[in-house]
Amino acid sequence: MENKIINLAVIGLGRIGKIHANNINNNIPGVNLFAVADIYEDALKDIEADSLELVTTDYHEVLKSPDIDGVLICTSTETHAEIIIEASEKGKHIFCEKPIALQMEKIDKALSAVEENNVIIEIGFNRRYDPNFNKAQKLIEKGEIGKPVQIVIISRDPAPPDEQYIAGCGGMYLDMTIHDFDMARFLLGEEIVEIMATGNCLIDNNFAKHGDIDVSTVSFTSESGCVGTIINSRKSSYGYDNRAEVLGAEGSIEVENRKDTEVKIKKENGIVNDKLMHFFTERYAQAYIEEIKDFAKCIREKTTPLASGHDGKMAFKLGQAAKKSLEVQGKVKV
Amino acid sequence: MENKIINLAVIGLGRIGKIHANNINNNIPGVNLFAVADIYEDALKDIEADSLELVTTDYHEVLKSPDIDGVLICTSTETHAEIIIEASEKGKHIFCEKPIALQMEKIDKALSAVEENNVIIEIGFNRRYDPNFNKAQKLIEKGEIGKPVQIVIISRDPAPPDEQYIAGCGGMYLDMTIHDFDMARFLLGEEIVEIMATGNCLIDNNFAKHGDIDVSTVSFTSESGCVGTIINSRKSSYGYDNRAEVLGAEGSIEVENRKDTEVKIKKENGIVNDKLMHFFTERYAQAYIEEIKDFAKCIREKTTPLASGHDGKMAFKLGQAAKKSLEVQGKVKV
Amino acid sequence: MENKIINLAVIGLGRIGKIHANNINNNIPGVNLFAVADIYEDALKDIEADSLELVTTDYHEVLKSPDIDGVLICTSTETHAEIIIEASEKGKHIFCEKPIALQMEKIDKALSAVEENNVIIEIGFNRRYDPNFNKAQKLIEKGEIGKPVQIVIISRDPAPPDEQYIAGCGGMYLDMTIHDFDMARFLLGEEIVEIMATGNCLIDNNFAKHGDIDVSTVSFTSESGCVGTIINSRKSSYGYDNRAEVLGAEGSIEVENRKDTEVKIKKENGIVNDKLMHFFTERYAQAYIEEIKDFAKCIREKTTPLASGHDGKMAFKLGQAAKKSLEVQGKVKV
Amino acid sequence: MENKIINLAVIGLGRIGKIHANNINNNIPGVNLFAVADIYEDALKDIEADSLELVTTDYHEVLKSPDIDGVLICTSTETHAEIIIEASEKGKHIFCEKPIALQMEKIDKALSAVEENNVIIEIGFNRRYDPNFNKAQKLIEKGEIGKPVQIVIISRDPAPPDEQYIAGCGGMYLDMTIHDFDMARFLLGEEIVEIMATGNCLIDNNFAKHGDIDVSTVSFTSESGCVGTIINSRKSSYGYDNRAEVLGAEGSIEVENRKDTEVKIKKENGIVNDKLMHFFTERYAQAYIEEIKDFAKCIREKTTPLASGHDGKMAFKLGQAAKKSLEVQGKVKV
Repeated sequence: MENKIINLAVIGLGRIGKIHANNINNNIPGVNLFAVADIYEDALKDIEADSLELVTTDYHEVLKSPDIDGVLICTSTETHAEIIIEASEKGKHIFCEKPIALQMEKIDKALSAVEENNVIIEIGFNRRYDPNFNKAQKLIEKGEIGKPVQIVIISRDPAPPDEQYIAGCGGMYLDMTIHDFDMARFLLGEEIVEIMATGNCLIDNNFAKHGDIDVSTVSFTSESGCVGTIINSRKSSYGYDNRAEVLGAEGSIEVENRKDTEVKIKKENGIVNDKLMHFFTERYAQAYIEEIKDFAKCIREKTTPLASGHDGKMAFKLGQAAKKSLEVQGKVKV
Repeated sequence: MENKIINLAVIGLGRIGKIHANNINNNIPGVNLFAVADIYEDALKDIEADSLELVTTDYHEVLKSPDIDGVLICTSTETHAEIIIEASEKGKHIFCEKPIALQMEKIDKALSAVEENNVIIEIGFNRRYDPNFNKAQKLIEKGEIGKPVQIVIISRDPAPPDEQYIAGCGGMYLDMTIHDFDMARFLLGEEIVEIMATGNCLIDNNFAKHGDIDVSTVSFTSESGCVGTIINSRKSSYGYDNRAEVLGAEGSIEVENRKDTEVKIKKENGIVNDKLMHFFTERYAQAYIEEIKDFAKCIREKTTPLASGHDGKMAFKLGQAAKKSLEVQGKVKV
Repeated sequence: MENKIINLAVIGLGRIGKIHANNINNNIPGVNLFAVADIYEDALKDIEADSLELVTTDYHEVLKSPDIDGVLICTSTETHAEIIIEASEKGKHIFCEKPIALQMEKIDKALSAVEENNVIIEIGFNRRYDPNFNKAQKLIEKGEIGKPVQIVIISRDPAPPDEQYIAGCGGMYLDMTIHDFDMARFLLGEEIVEIMATGNCLIDNNFAKHGDIDVSTVSFTSESGCVGTIINSRKSSYGYDNRAEVLGAEGSIEVENRKDTEVKIKKENGIVNDKLMHFFTERYAQAYIEEIKDFAKCIREKTTPLASGHDGKMAFKLGQAAKKSLEVQGKVKV
Repeated sequence: MENKIINLAVIGLGRIGKIHANNINNNIPGVNLFAVADIYEDALKDIEADSLELVTTDYHEVLKSPDIDGVLICTSTETHAEIIIEASEKGKHIFCEKPIALQMEKIDKALSAVEENNVIIEIGFNRRYDPNFNKAQKLIEKGEIGKPVQIVIISRDPAPPDEQYIAGCGGMYLDMTIHDFDMARFLLGEEIVEIMATGNCLIDNNFAKHGDIDVSTVSFTSESGCVGTIINSRKSSYGYDNRAEVLGAEGSIEVENRKDTEVKIKKENGIVNDKLMHFFTERYAQAYIEEIKDFAKCIREKTTPLASGHDGKMAFKLGQAAKKSLEVQGKVKV
């Protein structure tokens, strides 16, 4: 099976679905964009690929096709679980954007179906596939800084999303911090056991309107006692700010931001570097390619993806715990 | 009084007392090192200054001298309050190393004496006088980044102190974090109202032995709702790590570390910059000069120092609240 | 013609030819990889593209095909001129790797053919298309730093090439510095009029063996008197080092290198950043895409490429002048 | 003699003389400011020191005083040689600002007197004593980057001096580049044997008026064949720009500039770092202290200073050679 072309289908052609469709078509050797599905006919028009055999507004058609090896679920969150279940039953391998669902019960059902049907599931925690964070993880794992004692993750979006997005995203901890929880688990290689959350709405009143916050600090401890901090903001002004630092017994590893260019202007008012890359689509362009490469590799070699279904579940659990900690204003055991 | 030479005395000639004595003698125009006092005769031998009129093992001698305008209290913490009271009563202006005391009652008594006797008190929050943090504060105050919504302060010592120091320092929050609380109040220009602390002992068992921690995250909110984070560690390996970042509605201001030199080695294994400056004595050499300049200026002009007695009290209060939050494992109102 | 798909052919499938073939196939909208040609049958096997209609060991076949709009000449230097002439006569637009030829006479003949047949020629000065250098040029052009008075360009290869390459490359000034001469003309927007070259062979004896040097400084003045410096080395050890700085009457613009990742290790021995990107294929990956996009756009809109035939000729002229300056050990007028 | 206080005198109390007088008085243990001399009585008024025994408008008085161990010659250049000779004859050790003289004959006479009278002479090449350049030199010497094959030195003043200074300074190569020639000799640890200079007047017409240039590139080769480049400008706009880079067979060492502070503003228009330190007085504050410490140490231990009389002569010789190269528009042997 090593050299077989893997036929993939993308279900849901929003911003992220289109990124995946384009990468499958152009940037990843050994895969075909075999089918696309979206409930809006208009979305389907944008996709062009010589290998496309099936273009449909009904994703069930995709799941029925015997030629498809794996599906990418890029639809809205509330539909993820049921598509996962159906895809599993049809024996399709699954790549699913995070979060799996907004209820733990649904997540558990979906992952049970995956397990029973013995298909692969990869969750879209793209940052694990970023060459920067990936290298940091490997260095920590091989002991470069000794045992981790502190981790600090900073994630700030350049500007708040629109109100519709705010209303449906599940709140900061399930929409934004969930990525950082996953990063903490990834870099530390162990589970988080206690969480304390502090937050506020200071940037955009729409968050408060929907019971949400826009600035936050979450502190936590891991199994081995490592003390962690996740700092989030819905606005940064200077680009997409996404950093991490792990302090170990023998030193520290830092992942810094990338700038648009390495052009520098030196004048009387100071030394001006370029802004940070604008947003996640620019910052993680390579990571989006790498995660689908891993998906294809896992299908081919029957191995577990770097971002597994279990990782999707655990990050959700931590997001929920942070939400609860904010409510009870104190420490929450996970 | 503008051109009068200010006669100063240093009481307590440990590491920090010697730094002050040397700076008064050499680096600050318009001041004289008139007297030094230390209970150990040996400590007195190291101090040389043409202006020295009084060298004594009994600090009461110093306070009695009519020629002395101000005293620097650099003795061990438990003696600060009583020396402040006595100096106030003798009409001496006071520079006191932090913390004022380890009991709020003693702090209040000391500050009452200061007020009743109408003398000036400056607290040794040296970082306020560092050109880097000082510039950041001015930029924030004049609105460079808009209203602050997040503040992140990282302070890590290069290596843990010895056990004797650990036993008597009052714990991480009153010994180390107290500086960061003061920095938060300084940069934000407002009070902190709620605190949550998380910490652990992972680096040096001596901390646990004395009921203390060596890694910590403190999150807090200020009066206006700004969400803050203070991250501390008793060991960094790569030098003294002392940074701050304030995110405002329109951008961010960051204060980064200084390195020993700007020498860079570029080889096959990477691009190696010099380490961070070793410890606070190197990093804040200029700040130690500036704070005594401010003390002399305040004596001359009868104004309030940048780091006042009130600042000393408030930082202590926050340190205590953090301690309590760690105990109760939840949010504490200040 | 705006929406017509442009059919392109790549002649010569060495390292650089393969990069172009792959980019045309995958990364550039609106173009087809219609044909490839290489004298070695083996080289042809590596190329796969659904749009490929012609795969041949005889490039004349390519030039005869009526469906091809433009050809990319990626063969060895000594064949460039004759293929340019033949392609021009067949009405094919031309992208040609640098240098056009190693004799001025041949360059002139080739460019005459291009002009007579009214086809477009773009020269592979990829750095003009790099987002970093491109942005710097635009900033200078719009007056960000005032009139340029100094330019400094540093280019160092990570390691020397093999002897065969050394023997046939035309020497440092025509192989390596030619790119920097083009960059100087590009950033300054004017001609270079005087040149002085100093160099030596210190890194690899193969250079001396073939009458070549491996470290060099070329200084020059432009029409307006701007003083320039190009610093080259055939070995850097720490990755591909390619920087530029233009000092103007009101400030300076610097283009710095990119590193492999933004991962930083901070330990007792210093703060270690990642190495520079390994070589030009990594550093200019985006530029190789952009230059072919420009080629397609110029074919479509009948405009002149950012790197024109004239630019190819001028850079060669400057390389020759540098060579002569090294011989005569003095200043040479261009 | 190890613990003897060294009595020093400063002759000439211009900007640099005052820096030395102040450092001797305040920042250097084991030395006394015993005497000061200046032809202007007003200049003498600014100097205060408890140790001052002699304040005079006639420097001969200073040289006659039997209590003085060493003199610092900070007068205008044309008087250096004769004061050196007289001081030597009186057995005084000598620190002399650069250049020793503007005629080689005078330099030779001065250094002969020094040798005959067996006194120490140190030249004010302050950069050798800067912790940054000093560390770089030591790393190169101990083989950190292998054999040096390229050196690049960039020195730019923030703004041009006034016309009076321009008229008397000896031209760019003897006033500015002379420091860089010394740095090249210092970092490489060997002599420069060939020089080529290119320059122009583009910034301030006063330079052209006095037959001088304001932008320049000097390329050179050392005894072992290392190819060097010195890039100078009389204006930088963004602070005092003073860098160096040495490429060796196994890597590169870079000395970068220091900024005023490590404060960074991140906003929509980019990431703004602080300016470079304003000028040499700020940038080399520590170096001015270190060079006098070395002077005192050499007097005490009868050793040769890091910046010797021979170094002063050689740098002058190279400055002259650069001047000649600019005239003859070609390579000049030193």
